[in-house]
Amino acid sequence: MESNFPRYRRVGILGGMGPAAALDLQAKVLALTPATRDEDHLPVVTWNVPQIPDRVAAIAGHGPSPLPAIAEGARSLEAAGAEAIAIACNTAHHWAEELRAGMRVPLLHIVDAVAEAIATRPARPSRIGLLGTRGTLASGFYGRRLEALGFAWIAPDEACQVAYVDPAIAAVKRADRRGAIELFAGAARHLTERGADLLLLGCTELPLALAGSGFEARSLDANHALAEAVVRFARGPQARP
Amino acid sequence: MESNFPRYRRVGILGGMGPAAALDLQAKVLALTPATRDEDHLPVVTWNVPQIPDRVAAIAGHGPSPLPAIAEGARSLEAAGAEAIAIACNTAHHWAEELRAGMRVPLLHIVDAVAEAIATRPARPSRIGLLGTRGTLASGFYGRRLEALGFAWIAPDEACQVAYVDPAIAAVKRADRRGAIELFAGAARHLTERGADLLLLGCTELPLALAGSGFEARSLDANHALAEAVVRFARGPQARP
Repeated sequence: MESNFPRYRRVGILGGMGPAAALDLQAKVLALTPATRDEDHLPVVTWNVPQIPDRVAAIAGHGPSPLPAIAEGARSLEAAGAEAIAIACNTAHHWAEELRAGMRVPLLHIVDAVAEAIATRPARPSRIGLLGTRGTLASGFYGRRLEALGFAWIAPDEACQVAYVDPAIAAVKRADRRGAIELFAGAARHLTERGADLLLLGCTELPLALAGSGFEARSLDANHALAEAVVRFARGPQARP
Repeated sequence: MESNFPRYRRVGILGGMGPAAALDLQAKVLALTPATRDEDHLPVVTWNVPQIPDRVAAIAGHGPSPLPAIAEGARSLEAAGAEAIAIACNTAHHWAEELRAGMRVPLLHIVDAVAEAIATRPARPSRIGLLGTRGTLASGFYGRRLEALGFAWIAPDEACQVAYVDPAIAAVKRADRRGAIELFAGAARHLTERGADLLLLGCTELPLALAGSGFEARSLDANHALAEAVVRFARGPQARP
């Protein structure tokens, strides 16, 4: 490397869950980076290998663990010089602590990134409405961390998860954006009626159902928060990883 | 890896030149892949590290070679299990043969991908108009390969390169899409008036200036052709790399 280039820290993106979420995270990192030349952009290596056992099924006890495949990705990223790793999937953070135990570099945890993004909002939310896969909700890692930070939070009830959230995520995966927006709005109404003043989009598919839903201003996209954390880490050795 | 997953070959994308082109290539691979589930998508690892000496300046003899940085990327991708490598930059193919000499896996050369894409068009072009950076044009690798395949080709004259092509590429890099489209259309008119019946977009910035220019049907995007080659390689061990 040339010594006259800016010295940024290299970040590894662990993707494949699904692969579009890893592209979305890369695009958000690119858009968030102040740059006028190629070399102002941040060094990123992305492992986007989708042959990973299903995360939601594994958390429900219905399938093999994705941990070996995810750990292989982390090792590959470390070998490619990654100085920190970000996982472009909320649900996969169920295995974050086991993954960390085998990693040499820090993990930029998506819930820490969300907590930092909440802290920059003009008003502290009184009740967070958490939207995610049923794997993410069953795992509990989001709720535990939000509670540790002193936030009250609610999740959709089972009827709402079945009628709106699960189908909204599935609609995004099959590229039915109009259907996804309507379903997302149904879940958002349910949570706001129950007092949520901030909707936390804790699934990388849901931001694609947000624009046009009417809930943009009171929503927080976890993948966008993670992109902000990636940029902070890469641009500053003084940044807290 | 689970044995019930489809067995696809892993492809490494060498990016950073600029980083948006590597995202564009990944997005085109994703869009070209027939998939209904995450695991139907292709395993891709992307090295997107933009701290690489300027390619156009190096070809003009005004700067250091980018080859050591590019070769480091290729080694990282091989270490991450890449079974072939695609470079998301036309100009960087100036160093393709030197790079190949140090690689253990095949390079999916962008001009081979373009040649395969031309072969699938309904009519064989009588004269190809080649648009690219002045580094790509000065290098000559595109012209030599097109001639070897029996194609006649022309490039913009210096006045057109200065007035339209260089500024169109710069306009895309600074996200001035409307300006880029007008400039691209100027270059496209110049080449079609000189008899080009196929415009070859041999620079990864130019496709972003194509939509709305009126030249869509008679253009071929080299990065799209490369994405097709990536999909062919990854999906078939029988596919010619």
